Amino acid sequence: MTKQKFGLTVRKEQDFSEWYVQVITKGEMLDYYEIKGCYVMRPTSQFIWKCIQRWFTEKIECLGVQECYFPMLIPKSMLEKEKDHIKNFSPEVAWITKCGDEVLEDPVAIRPTSETIMYPSFSKWIKSHRDLPLKVNQWCSVLRWELHGTLPFIRGKEFLWQEGHTVFLSKEESDEEVGTILDLYSRIYSELLAVPVIKGRKSENEKFGGAAYTTSIEAFIPGSGRGVQAATSHSLGQNFSKMFNIKVDADDGQGDGHVYVYQNSWGITTRSIGISVMIHSDDIGLVLPPRVAMIQVVIVPCGITASTPESDGKMLDEYVEKLHSQLKDAGIRVHVDSRSNITVGFKFNHWEIRGVPLRLEVGPKDMQKNEVCVVRRDTRNKKQVSAHRISEVVADEIEIMHSEMLAKATAERDSRISQVYNFDEFLSALDSKNIVVAPWCCDGDCEMEIKSKSTKVDSNGNVVATGAKTLCIPYEAEACDGMKCVYCNKQAMKRTLFGRSY
Amino acid sequence: MTKQKFGLTVRKEQDFSEWYVQVITKGEMLDYYEIKGCYVMRPTSQFIWKCIQRWFTEKIECLGVQECYFPMLIPKSMLEKEKDHIKNFSPEVAWITKCGDEVLEDPVAIRPTSETIMYPSFSKWIKSHRDLPLKVNQWCSVLRWELHGTLPFIRGKEFLWQEGHTVFLSKEESDEEVGTILDLYSRIYSELLAVPVIKGRKSENEKFGGAAYTTSIEAFIPGSGRGVQAATSHSLGQNFSKMFNIKVDADDGQGDGHVYVYQNSWGITTRSIGISVMIHSDDIGLVLPPRVAMIQVVIVPCGITASTPESDGKMLDEYVEKLHSQLKDAGIRVHVDSRSNITVGFKFNHWEIRGVPLRLEVGPKDMQKNEVCVVRRDTRNKKQVSAHRISEVVADEIEIMHSEMLAKATAERDSRISQVYNFDEFLSALDSKNIVVAPWCCDGDCEMEIKSKSTKVDSNGNVVATGAKTLCIPYEAEACDGMKCVYCNKQAMKRTLFGRSY
Repeated sequence: MTKQKFGLTVRKEQDFSEWYVQVITKGEMLDYYEIKGCYVMRPTSQFIWKCIQRWFTEKIECLGVQECYFPMLIPKSMLEKEKDHIKNFSPEVAWITKCGDEVLEDPVAIRPTSETIMYPSFSKWIKSHRDLPLKVNQWCSVLRWELHGTLPFIRGKEFLWQEGHTVFLSKEESDEEVGTILDLYSRIYSELLAVPVIKGRKSENEKFGGAAYTTSIEAFIPGSGRGVQAATSHSLGQNFSKMFNIKVDADDGQGDGHVYVYQNSWGITTRSIGISVMIHSDDIGLVLPPRVAMIQVVIVPCGITASTPESDGKMLDEYVEKLHSQLKDAGIRVHVDSRSNITVGFKFNHWEIRGVPLRLEVGPKDMQKNEVCVVRRDTRNKKQVSAHRISEVVADEIEIMHSEMLAKATAERDSRISQVYNFDEFLSALDSKNIVVAPWCCDGDCEMEIKSKSTKVDSNGNVVATGAKTLCIPYEAEACDGMKCVYCNKQAMKRTLFGRSY
Repeated sequence: MTKQKFGLTVRKEQDFSEWYVQVITKGEMLDYYEIKGCYVMRPTSQFIWKCIQRWFTEKIECLGVQECYFPMLIPKSMLEKEKDHIKNFSPEVAWITKCGDEVLEDPVAIRPTSETIMYPSFSKWIKSHRDLPLKVNQWCSVLRWELHGTLPFIRGKEFLWQEGHTVFLSKEESDEEVGTILDLYSRIYSELLAVPVIKGRKSENEKFGGAAYTTSIEAFIPGSGRGVQAATSHSLGQNFSKMFNIKVDADDGQGDGHVYVYQNSWGITTRSIGISVMIHSDDIGLVLPPRVAMIQVVIVPCGITASTPESDGKMLDEYVEKLHSQLKDAGIRVHVDSRSNITVGFKFNHWEIRGVPLRLEVGPKDMQKNEVCVVRRDTRNKKQVSAHRISEVVADEIEIMHSEMLAKATAERDSRISQVYNFDEFLSALDSKNIVVAPWCCDGDCEMEIKSKSTKVDSNGNVVATGAKTLCIPYEAEACDGMKCVYCNKQAMKRTLFGRSY
């Protein structure tokens, strides 16, 4: 059992894609599956998803959102009701045409998203302004038949997500909620996954099919130099309410008038897990953000050899068990690796490649001094600490580790966002694996031109790097009064975040 | 807004099927959907499912079960690997044959259950006895294309469930877990849903496709006189491990021998919600088991009319708010119905049809005496209580209500289980809407005969009542030494529970 066999065989800088696959498979987060673009989420990754689920559910319950479950099947006629919407999704929609040996008269689609499934019900439920606001959310899987560029967690045929769907009487309430939800998504990344994100609005080309506007949070993957959409919160305006006839009496039931409602939808997916892995993990393997790690601390008894007297071994076991129960009682997720058939060094490797945030090494000498040695997974720094109040020490260490991982990722990201003002600078920044902020005219054709002109092709005409597109128009970007568009030289409207992306 | 319009229009005894549909739709548990056999789970029913999820997850975590998520898609070759298994499911399997406009070369199935999805991974993960036991569970939806007899919650094309899949080295460990899980399922019914169930083993005809044996819990629906399978825990023996090559080295790696592992799978579905509704609800509407009700208590301010001085109204509001916050702080799920546009009587009807377990009526006179009037949904008994320590009073009332609902359902069920010894008694008990316990030879052909002979057909040859089948062989049934089979007169092997069923 050599390190070569079990460890990573490639460095992050050397071959980022291959490194990522090794990290998630050898770290036991995910397994490949018989069908391309479908993956098995193993307990370590499912645990992170459950942490996100618990945190977000609590937050949206306070906003009055209720949980529900709608069917996964959609009749064709319903799916096609909102034209921009279906245009966006139709190439990816999977169709059931056969059941047992019987061919269905009317094929049904599997949900790629549930707007067209839910809104006929909304139309039945909402009759008066007293039925508003209506706020529901469901956790489920969706199916989008991606043929190219599938990548574990990041882009798959099936993925897990939550989709919130809300209905308001006024545009103001709806607009406010779009922002509230985007803030919560941003906090999932910073507070749970230790990942910094940028909030902003999508360009017209990049908005959700059928939306009035789309807001998003965008993360940066240093290893590939690409941006990645991390979650979206859409204002659907009245587009769907008009198609699905969701309306209330105007003027409190007086008169014949009706008012179409304003709707939002918003979602975050298991892509978040992949983003976190790509950012934090290293050449040794997985590095898990400590707040969401299924095992936060592993205790490894050390220094016992064949010649150690049995009584010493027993005492050490008791010492370890005391530490274990103290940590457990404090709500820390702790595991003792008491395997006797493998070496201590092998255990270290085993837990490092699986990303466990903290390792406690405990040997006879530590026991004599009532100490333990704490080793952090991210920095691999070792610290000898008193075992007195060990649970507080470990809880502090978890918080420190979280903050430092977030700070490190933020510093790295910030150093890789280039402010550019002309297209030469733009292209050269991209080639240095940066993303860019540039003054932009906000025109859709210009955006397509930029994408096409930044696509890199080799001598045989094969695309070696996809073109850059707008990631978002950051809310916190400075004004660009009097500036020219980075590409077309027309008047710039917004400083916009561009990048190659997933 | 008359009662006629919003209340049920049919009594439970009069037309049970129509009554059930009205209870769940007017009680806002569920909505019908465009596709037959697919239903919308509204927040009230989703909340119950979440309670079950939370309770069961905590219990199986203590058994070392880890949560995971496997893909919903299955290639044909994998699905067909275990022959008994596919025989059982093939008529109900839905096939995706088209994506966007493209026809798939190899159609893929949607999971009706995940044995064949998970076990190839198990085969990769399990190499040594040190990798055992392996215990995973997932919460998801499955698709079984039921064409006939679809019924909300009870039998649908898509339903939510959990499926646990575990692997052991020895048959003994595996057998023990089958029972442990069945006990937990039984407790979900008794402790959360206030429903009594009977534990037992399925006949050979009724066992799960591919199982060595199946155990189940069975409930009874007095309104229809039918039994209903409430959850199942299967021993798969080595049937799947031999097909999917899941094995470990024999003798701890010494020698060439391999040992095939023993596997279990077990599941409970949203059918549980329907069973609970059918048993507890009444001619007024839904009656929710209080421990899992989304709203456990509704407070209705009463006795305020147009002539009430404004200051009195304000004082009542404050009194109500105090009660509200005391209950909320005690963790009780409470809602204040402060709507001003409808009458108190309408509010009572509104919450009764939605099954809210307790209503607190609070008027100026109650306030003066520092009292409230507590009304139970199930019995409609009223009780004037002191508002002093209201949260303890309400918490007690919830527990009493739960116990009494369970006791009532148990007494009713017990009075409807007939002990029969010949086939005339058998048939007459069925016709009185009972289920029966009868000595049985345990022969599969005999079971089929019983089913056929107990099928009721009208003068036109239409089936008016399906035949009875075995529900289970109850663990607690007495021996039947020397008795004859209730149908074929051969030697009886087991006292067995028979009934018409869902």
